Amino acid sequence: MLASLTLPVSLPTPGGSVTLRRADTADLDALMRLLADDAVSASRGDRADESDVPAYRAGLVDTLADPSNDLVVAVGPDGAVLAMMQLTRIPGLARRGATRLLIEAVRVSSARRSSGIGAAMMRWCTDVAAPALGAGLVQLTSDEARTDAHRFYERLGFVGSHRGFKFAVGAPGSTR
Amino acid sequence: MLASLTLPVSLPTPGGSVTLRRADTADLDALMRLLADDAVSASRGDRADESDVPAYRAGLVDTLADPSNDLVVAVGPDGAVLAMMQLTRIPGLARRGATRLLIEAVRVSSARRSSGIGAAMMRWCTDVAAPALGAGLVQLTSDEARTDAHRFYERLGFVGSHRGFKFAVGAPGSTR
Repeated sequence: MLASLTLPVSLPTPGGSVTLRRADTADLDALMRLLADDAVSASRGDRADESDVPAYRAGLVDTLADPSNDLVVAVGPDGAVLAMMQLTRIPGLARRGATRLLIEAVRVSSARRSSGIGAAMMRWCTDVAAPALGAGLVQLTSDEARTDAHRFYERLGFVGSHRGFKFAVGAPGSTR
Repeated sequence: MLASLTLPVSLPTPGGSVTLRRADTADLDALMRLLADDAVSASRGDRADESDVPAYRAGLVDTLADPSNDLVVAVGPDGAVLAMMQLTRIPGLARRGATRLLIEAVRVSSARRSSGIGAAMMRWCTDVAAPALGAGLVQLTSDEARTDAHRFYERLGFVGSHRGFKFAVGAPGSTR
């Protein structure tokens, strides 16, 4: 977990407040369902299969135990998990020694998309989390297929200046 | 530093072997010059200004002290620093609990570009470092202006499937 982040915190959205808090292992089912509730993720194998529970649990435990990583969820008044994101603090040399905040795995429940929850989460990242972590740069990548998400990030002030490359280790398509 | 990486290691390149080793604070000058020896980096403020030494030193110390990060340099037989890259291990939930290896700040001395050093470093990342870190995915972003670099990564088996977004915290252009 990122110890310098103050959580939980209440975030206003047009549909009412949500609470941003750290995920814990009791959220595993909800997190797996959030990942599977997305066509792009599902196409990469995130299908909430029961047989994948140990792999997801190991990933969650590893993430929460890491002092440079955190997994944050937005929950409604009834405690339902509505959205998730992973945060990573990355120190570095480039850009005059800038520290970066990397955001990964942003997912909002399909029933609550376009309700302002994602925007409230991103604004908390840029305006609260990044300064708390000493980060001068917030960065993320988004699949080229997610054109709606690209417009969303641009509206929030992100600049799509980079191409994101992935290499699947050991995958048939990654042999040279 | 990433304790599970075995360094130093010798890498063959068409122009002779280079040694891949961890950077240390004695490399600070060479690292600042490598970053400035690149038009895109220089345009972002990496100009090897003497006044920026404290900021770069703090970034280097922070990176080397972090158990999820490492800064690696390729040196020639005479000990000259020819190239650099930063590695970050990122645990996570997406892609069935996959751990990622993120590569940042890949720079090769302008005098040694297209000599195979960068390719040897990337192959070491995908074939040696990623398995050692338990990473099923290697990822990086590259400025849209670096079209030669994009072809380079594609030749190595990387897929440019994503758009990379950046948000400069506190920058005039990032206010909403």
